[in-house]
Amino acid sequence: MASEFDLIARYFTRPAPAGMLGVGDDCALFPAPAGMHIATSTDLLIQGRHFFPDVDPAALGHKALAVNLSDLAAMGARPIGCVLGLALPQASESWLAGFAQGFHGLADRHGCPLMGGDTTRSPHDLAISVTVFGAVAPERALRRDAARAGDDIWVSGALGAADVAYRLLDGQLPADPQRLAATRRALEWPEPRVALGQALGGLARAAIDISDGLLQDLAHVLEASGVGAHLAYETLPVAPALRGLPAATVSRAVLGGGDVYELCFTAAPGDRERVRAAAAAAGVPVTPIGRVDPRPGIVVADADGRPLADLPRGFDHFLAS
Amino acid sequence: MASEFDLIARYFTRPAPAGMLGVGDDCALFPAPAGMHIATSTDLLIQGRHFFPDVDPAALGHKALAVNLSDLAAMGARPIGCVLGLALPQASESWLAGFAQGFHGLADRHGCPLMGGDTTRSPHDLAISVTVFGAVAPERALRRDAARAGDDIWVSGALGAADVAYRLLDGQLPADPQRLAATRRALEWPEPRVALGQALGGLARAAIDISDGLLQDLAHVLEASGVGAHLAYETLPVAPALRGLPAATVSRAVLGGGDVYELCFTAAPGDRERVRAAAAAAGVPVTPIGRVDPRPGIVVADADGRPLADLPRGFDHFLAS
Repeated sequence: MASEFDLIARYFTRPAPAGMLGVGDDCALFPAPAGMHIATSTDLLIQGRHFFPDVDPAALGHKALAVNLSDLAAMGARPIGCVLGLALPQASESWLAGFAQGFHGLADRHGCPLMGGDTTRSPHDLAISVTVFGAVAPERALRRDAARAGDDIWVSGALGAADVAYRLLDGQLPADPQRLAATRRALEWPEPRVALGQALGGLARAAIDISDGLLQDLAHVLEASGVGAHLAYETLPVAPALRGLPAATVSRAVLGGGDVYELCFTAAPGDRERVRAAAAAAGVPVTPIGRVDPRPGIVVADADGRPLADLPRGFDHFLAS
Repeated sequence: MASEFDLIARYFTRPAPAGMLGVGDDCALFPAPAGMHIATSTDLLIQGRHFFPDVDPAALGHKALAVNLSDLAAMGARPIGCVLGLALPQASESWLAGFAQGFHGLADRHGCPLMGGDTTRSPHDLAISVTVFGAVAPERALRRDAARAGDDIWVSGALGAADVAYRLLDGQLPADPQRLAATRRALEWPEPRVALGQALGGLARAAIDISDGLLQDLAHVLEASGVGAHLAYETLPVAPALRGLPAATVSRAVLGGGDVYELCFTAAPGDRERVRAAAAAAGVPVTPIGRVDPRPGIVVADADGRPLADLPRGFDHFLAS
């Protein structure tokens, strides 16, 4: 029978890419790209907090890396590689095989090889830590503090599906297998917008990836930049899978739903066509959803330009008073 | 009352060093040092597995970073910075303050600022992930696969104290408050040999830090290098705090005790004086403990040159047959 170490070696040790020293030494080594900045981000995911215990291990492997690649995307950085920490209550071969498949599948598509790691036994909960490294020219980095009054506000992809899937799985919404089937992929297999982020480097001003919810993450950009925002609710790209849901469920999912991993970014109005061309080249739809205002706070306006009534509770503190 | 976010911000957000973008954006950014390789290492520590639940939080903060800095040291790399993931069952201010003090204290001494992180709530166990990055010129990197037959084998510092402290705390050795007082610091406040590692770059051949035990970690070097070793047991630097313990307890602690975080390295016999000078400059004692042999496996010899009798069980598979 294969030991735990053998299993981990089988699924997580791969030949190091050219020029790198990979899994198996005290550190992983990679060449520092000349003139670039190294971008790095880390996430620690815990069972029962960030994922359901019975989640498909391949989806979990994918998502553990995806949430970090999404941070590189929001910085406009090109992935270099990653390291992985796994604390496992038990090491089942089928679980490890699935997790590794999901992880390496996404890593391969984005040129982000696993370079090192640490595996250990956990008394209770599965814990997964991923740290990614990327490279970005400093003048092309998409920082949070660079939005300016008058900028367009854009969002990639569509909003709301992951939140609805989560609330269906968690029992907060009444069971609806058809809608779960239509939304679940957005929750479990988010696609980090790595190509879009790089295409926006030096073009967009500020950017963030939507992990906690559109209003909350946009608020981070606005606060860091010392500005506010006016959003046209009718222009928000709602995921088609939300069609037919009550308006309050939709607005909550679209404005407040987390786990989206789309990019929200600002750009000068004169760059609208360049933004569309960059997004087309990256193969990702983008939608202008409002503008940056000098006045702090967020106004979410209806089709008549009036502040939207009946916003979900908890959103108040993002809004302009 | 301060919210959890406020507390974390208070203890973990610090101004980014010049040229870096620190905590608060999607990624931390740091300049890639020209012509260097980036060295990175990650560890995931789980309560009940890697530390006792009642450990001093300052010691825990120190050690969580120390074990990673020790990996940079074993690579000969200069620290650049680190990222931290914390999953907390609860966020007590005194715990966070203590942890941050231990963490930042060590980080400051080694020029390894905290650049980013992720904090979350954990259902059961405290989990800590640390990823460090450093810089090393590729030709000065201390790899595991570079030992050559005829090399001296060296070890820094003294061996055995951490193992004895662990076994006293865990009840595997009879209670002995005086000895615990004399050994506990080695277990809880290990000092990573960062300066020594850099001083050995381009001088030592292979290196590793002792985290699992001298024989086990040396075996990794020997296997990667395709060689074996002859150790003179009487030359091993035993921690003075072990004086008076039974010989079997000492040999187990010295040869097999983990959590040491001293460096074990090999160097050409002709470089003996240069090694001593480098160690003196780094302020760390080093001791030659044997030589690299062409024949695989480890021989631990007594003062008469005969294989040591009565080695602890579990060591057999490292030994030359």
